Amino acid sequence: MNIEWLYTPCQSLDTAAHSAAQARQMQLTKPPGALGELENLATRLAAMQGTERPAVDAVWITVFAGDHGVAAEGVSAFPQSVTGEMVRNFARGGAAISVLARALGADLEVINLGTVNDPYDAANVTHLRLGLGTANFIVEAAMTPAQCAVALRAGRDSAARAKQAGAQLYVGGEMGIGNSTAAAALACALLNETPQHLAGPGTGLDRAGVGHKIKVIQRALTLHADHLADPSEALRRLGGFEIAALAGAYLACAKTGLPILVDGFISSAAALAAERLCPGTAQWFMYAHSSAEPGHTRILTALDAKPLLNLGMRLGEGSGAAMAVPLLRLACALHNGMATFAEAAVSTKC
Amino acid sequence: MNIEWLYTPCQSLDTAAHSAAQARQMQLTKPPGALGELENLATRLAAMQGTERPAVDAVWITVFAGDHGVAAEGVSAFPQSVTGEMVRNFARGGAAISVLARALGADLEVINLGTVNDPYDAANVTHLRLGLGTANFIVEAAMTPAQCAVALRAGRDSAARAKQAGAQLYVGGEMGIGNSTAAAALACALLNETPQHLAGPGTGLDRAGVGHKIKVIQRALTLHADHLADPSEALRRLGGFEIAALAGAYLACAKTGLPILVDGFISSAAALAAERLCPGTAQWFMYAHSSAEPGHTRILTALDAKPLLNLGMRLGEGSGAAMAVPLLRLACALHNGMATFAEAAVSTKC
Repeated sequence: MNIEWLYTPCQSLDTAAHSAAQARQMQLTKPPGALGELENLATRLAAMQGTERPAVDAVWITVFAGDHGVAAEGVSAFPQSVTGEMVRNFARGGAAISVLARALGADLEVINLGTVNDPYDAANVTHLRLGLGTANFIVEAAMTPAQCAVALRAGRDSAARAKQAGAQLYVGGEMGIGNSTAAAALACALLNETPQHLAGPGTGLDRAGVGHKIKVIQRALTLHADHLADPSEALRRLGGFEIAALAGAYLACAKTGLPILVDGFISSAAALAAERLCPGTAQWFMYAHSSAEPGHTRILTALDAKPLLNLGMRLGEGSGAAMAVPLLRLACALHNGMATFAEAAVSTKC
Repeated sequence: MNIEWLYTPCQSLDTAAHSAAQARQMQLTKPPGALGELENLATRLAAMQGTERPAVDAVWITVFAGDHGVAAEGVSAFPQSVTGEMVRNFARGGAAISVLARALGADLEVINLGTVNDPYDAANVTHLRLGLGTANFIVEAAMTPAQCAVALRAGRDSAARAKQAGAQLYVGGEMGIGNSTAAAALACALLNETPQHLAGPGTGLDRAGVGHKIKVIQRALTLHADHLADPSEALRRLGGFEIAALAGAYLACAKTGLPILVDGFISSAAALAAERLCPGTAQWFMYAHSSAEPGHTRILTALDAKPLLNLGMRLGEGSGAAMAVPLLRLACALHNGMATFAEAAVSTKC
């Protein structure tokens, strides 16, 4: 299975639509710039959607789940069975992202790429059965080339379904016990950073637990050191099924012109991998929030990202991105619905 | 007209509902604390609404407008006629807050307390005709005792209408050319600060303009110095019709048990005045955003406030608060709608 599609160019932004939207912002009945980031959001969405009047009514959310071999090293505060249990919870509507998707009227799909226990009876879930989680990356590469290619393609297929359904915004989420370890390891490789700067408590490790997690990541970085200059190898060796799928989804969105709202730490690591695989992908990113996971800031800085929210969230699932969807929607409502100075007969600046 | 009602006690928060909501948060299928500030929002709303399961479906927004005599000193980037022109724009649905209220399904009322030009033909606006704006506070007190009392009562009446309509959240907004000068002067008096720390560009002053604004505020603080220890006198002498109305609304909400979402710089100055007039009012405050107006941080710090958003907004009208309403709604949706570990059969922490 080849991964050549990763390297096809991204769609360009529509600079004419961007300029038209900027000109419109200057005519709306408010002091210029008074809506702050909301003005940037509206004009960036205009550039991505190729229209002076953007909209994010139709939101598509895919949550990718997968287990991690490195969980055997005791790097998570929760048992590995939780991944599969949460897949069921997503499907039954009880998880945070399920509640948020309902509240937002967003389409939600759940893709289980491979978990250690068996949630395969869960309805409304696509089960891809790539394996009982990834391999333990302190022993060998997390994924075989074939597994990684299928995971990337699962992301691409999800973006294609979103596009097909008329989505105006793509949100990716993830679930996988151990995936903050994988994301930190991957980010270390891509940023040439030490694990001390990227590893954090995840779902709730104490200080000693974080220290152990750092050592585990260091062992992995040492083992795979000769292969990490290539971002696709870094992703395959240190990532996970759901991280590769997210990267694939982001790449496909950028290639087909679908705006992306990036969630938190894990998603940002996948976003960074996507940008390294195909530079220009990041033009299609908006960043929802700054996670409580301390390493997130490093990744955001590397992506020159300015996240919209900073609420101390650290849940994943796409939940931080979902929280930011109303900001995008209201930014569009203001952009499209406010009167101009001329329309409202309001005086302009002295 | 007396203002004795300002000093009647605030309603107490429901500590039992707060504890029940906190206990519920600990059982939801997420690592404890992983929803960050959203958990605090839900449990605080529970305490305010006296129920384990809070809701903010019904949102009430009142925008208070009024002109300022101090505008004669050239302290704004926009001409004074804009206040009345914007009252019409609110009524016709073209202003930012009009668009946001529609998008949120919130009730919006507009109270014009007194403007220099005449927007009195504007439909859907209550006109209280307190005067052609306040007096210039570098010459005399901004308001007579009667004007200030009527403005405070206008706020109280607005809160009463909100309560009567079944509102679950109160948002106050304001419009008044010159009101960032009044709010800064009032905050200086209440915080015993210098205008250098509270005055900013408002709707768009340049550096020289801000310097002039600081001198104007200093003249007012000197003129009224002997009367500023009493917060009701500080409000009357340095505030404005719409600022007094906001303070009155906040006080009435706290006395009748209606949660308040505070907007930006002007609203926060009114909120600070309300808390000084009747300590305990601030228990009923949530803070929507951190404004780009530099003095806002000082006021927020004095109120021990942790605003939800920081989007570089500086528009007023209640627009920043409106932007934060979906965060409150989604916090409630998560709190009420997520499955517990037991319901979802998900394993808890190792």
